[in-house]
Amino acid sequence: MKPVKVGICGLGTVGSGSFNILRNNAEEITRRVGRSIVIEQVGARRDNDMCDLTGVNVTRDIFDVVANPEIDIVMELIGGTTIAKDLVLQAIENGKHVVTANKALIAEHGNEIFAKAQEKGVMVAFEAAVAGGIPIIKTIREGLSANRIDWLAGIINGTGNFIMTEMSEKNRPFSDVLAEAQALGYAEADPTFDVEGIDAAHKLTILASIAFGIPLQFEKTYTEGISKITAEDVGFAKDLGYSIKHLGIARRTDQGIELRVHPTLISKKQLLANVNGVMNAVMVKGDAVGPTLTYGAGAGGLPTGSSVIADVIDVARTLTADPDNRVPHLAFQANSLSDLPVLPVEEIESGYFLNMSIEDKAGVLANITQILSKNGISIESLIQREREGSDLVPLVVMTHIVKERNMNAAITEIEALSDISGKVQRIRVEHLA
Amino acid sequence: MKPVKVGICGLGTVGSGSFNILRNNAEEITRRVGRSIVIEQVGARRDNDMCDLTGVNVTRDIFDVVANPEIDIVMELIGGTTIAKDLVLQAIENGKHVVTANKALIAEHGNEIFAKAQEKGVMVAFEAAVAGGIPIIKTIREGLSANRIDWLAGIINGTGNFIMTEMSEKNRPFSDVLAEAQALGYAEADPTFDVEGIDAAHKLTILASIAFGIPLQFEKTYTEGISKITAEDVGFAKDLGYSIKHLGIARRTDQGIELRVHPTLISKKQLLANVNGVMNAVMVKGDAVGPTLTYGAGAGGLPTGSSVIADVIDVARTLTADPDNRVPHLAFQANSLSDLPVLPVEEIESGYFLNMSIEDKAGVLANITQILSKNGISIESLIQREREGSDLVPLVVMTHIVKERNMNAAITEIEALSDISGKVQRIRVEHLA
Repeated sequence: MKPVKVGICGLGTVGSGSFNILRNNAEEITRRVGRSIVIEQVGARRDNDMCDLTGVNVTRDIFDVVANPEIDIVMELIGGTTIAKDLVLQAIENGKHVVTANKALIAEHGNEIFAKAQEKGVMVAFEAAVAGGIPIIKTIREGLSANRIDWLAGIINGTGNFIMTEMSEKNRPFSDVLAEAQALGYAEADPTFDVEGIDAAHKLTILASIAFGIPLQFEKTYTEGISKITAEDVGFAKDLGYSIKHLGIARRTDQGIELRVHPTLISKKQLLANVNGVMNAVMVKGDAVGPTLTYGAGAGGLPTGSSVIADVIDVARTLTADPDNRVPHLAFQANSLSDLPVLPVEEIESGYFLNMSIEDKAGVLANITQILSKNGISIESLIQREREGSDLVPLVVMTHIVKERNMNAAITEIEALSDISGKVQRIRVEHLA
Repeated sequence: MKPVKVGICGLGTVGSGSFNILRNNAEEITRRVGRSIVIEQVGARRDNDMCDLTGVNVTRDIFDVVANPEIDIVMELIGGTTIAKDLVLQAIENGKHVVTANKALIAEHGNEIFAKAQEKGVMVAFEAAVAGGIPIIKTIREGLSANRIDWLAGIINGTGNFIMTEMSEKNRPFSDVLAEAQALGYAEADPTFDVEGIDAAHKLTILASIAFGIPLQFEKTYTEGISKITAEDVGFAKDLGYSIKHLGIARRTDQGIELRVHPTLISKKQLLANVNGVMNAVMVKGDAVGPTLTYGAGAGGLPTGSSVIADVIDVARTLTADPDNRVPHLAFQANSLSDLPVLPVEEIESGYFLNMSIEDKAGVLANITQILSKNGISIESLIQREREGSDLVPLVVMTHIVKERNMNAAITEIEALSDISGKVQRIRVEHLA
């Protein structure tokens, strides 16, 4: 078969990683695909020292790449949601297949992009958009295609997991670890995107769509960051046999879809609780297969490039296939997507870890437990400890599963008590079973 | 598109699981594939109470199924390597695509079966043959297709992992846990197949072929069981921060392929060391992606059926594709398989854990360390303990990585010392890095 010709747009971390994989593993890839994959053109504002561009057709205008009639597959590796969107739509318009690593673009504009791709009969592949090198899109969309997916839960932001791991292993405060993560290059100067869960919400949006067959609904994803988690919270969780992880969780209920990113207590016995540092992992629970977990590097040029090039190979293999018999973009046929609503966060169900400062005197505990009981909340475990040199002592309560609306009502009542100092810290608990 | 018609041969655990998934998730599957998958015929010696066969065309002769002109895909779920082989070859001869869960058949006769399938232009899919519901074949063959795979290591026999987990968590002896596993139905009356690693060797043979692009070479797989592991070995390993797991390991070196199943010490910090009970997990290290791990149920009707039906869906999707542009059976094009040899076990390289009984007197330790040193073996750590009421004390040595040939020579010399009682227990150590 004749070679497949690709054009690479963007030569940053992921672009250069993808370029180098195509170069270094060319022989292995040809042995697999039965045809070579040739870099026909590279579009980048500047060269990258990581890539030997000798003999490569390089243009400074990425739109040259999508206009190049020789090119079968356009790799969009520039990031962002403005120029990248124009680029991808133009590539589709020109009849090119597209491979992208752009989670924000897919999460925010995927519905429009996939509709256009379907109209033009081309593929838009996006394995690299979620969890870097972990083939989680393929796992859910194809590997578990026999299942009705019940829920998924993942550590899908390496920066956040590095911070939570360091806080847990070394009892360090958030701000201290964040500064180190910035020094190490794991976190940006403005860490909002990672630390407040926006990046994870982009990825969760995509995972939920392909798991349940719903349109992409980034704007409905509940997002809560890790910046308010204290070393004390982490310590109490540990004492109770739990780790605090920043998880993206999507669950299908009869009422609708839970779609939420937030700090979460999970049992130390869970494999997911033992995923440390910058690594990513996603649990998926299917009705036939039961719980599964997939683990690997969630970022970096080569791991993310591994997913980009796997997509290029997949697209190369379907170039000769019937467009109506491909794996659909969102795992389900475009005309069979579900209109199951995304639930408001008040409607989700979860266990809760509550950490509050109370006055060390009779009756306070009774008031609190009464408020919880009145709101239909039952207590699983409780820790009250002395705090030296203070009249205030910490009280930690772990509850059974309850609707968030009830918990909100209880917390409002508890915070109104005169014997409570400040806010109640509330962290959700998941049993992943 | 018109429905895809399948025939199920065998209605045991996996057959009934697959049947019920197709029935129960019919709507979800049709939403995914864009066409329905219809059970045209079932061939089984007897009915199964787990399946509602009302209105199903059932035959007692499974060869009716492969002869049925209506059927597109034959599901071989009878097991064994005699009738199953005839059935699969006949199905291929008749131009049917085949989906099988049969690890022994693929590991021992896959080369012949795939050659015939290639000749006839049909697919033989076998995701369910390795690690039950975990989509590890798809992960390696497609998800990590951009990588040169360096090595893989897996817990790929649930019975063995249940036994090792119980021995480790409860300090129980092997024979005791095996009896419980048999009572629970995890182990057969004759447990040889699981406990001596033959089942794992079948699976490892398949994984190695698709990772490295080599023909299936079951007969060259080194296989060592767990029946000689003692509670004392497990205890010492724990003290050193290790778990003992029964692993299948395949590694590519410049000299050839290491292909081996044996008990293995791995650090407790490894995610793989925390995979417990009957669960399976496979680590794969690619040059671009780095280390990955995939975890899930390795057996059972529904988990294994999850992989069977995912294969049926995959085949349904390639029915309209160019046969020369499919994912090759062994991940690499049939004419591009490598002739890299499988190394004899003496040529493998590994760390070692040695456990021996020595006389508690001066000079013994010096003799042993001298023998190790002379054979080029350096010691990483060492434990010598008192044993009450005995002149013999246990000596445990952990070594750095060395060639097995050297270790064999050293052990022969150590066992010849007059101050050693009995054999030296030798367990390999892997760092998985």
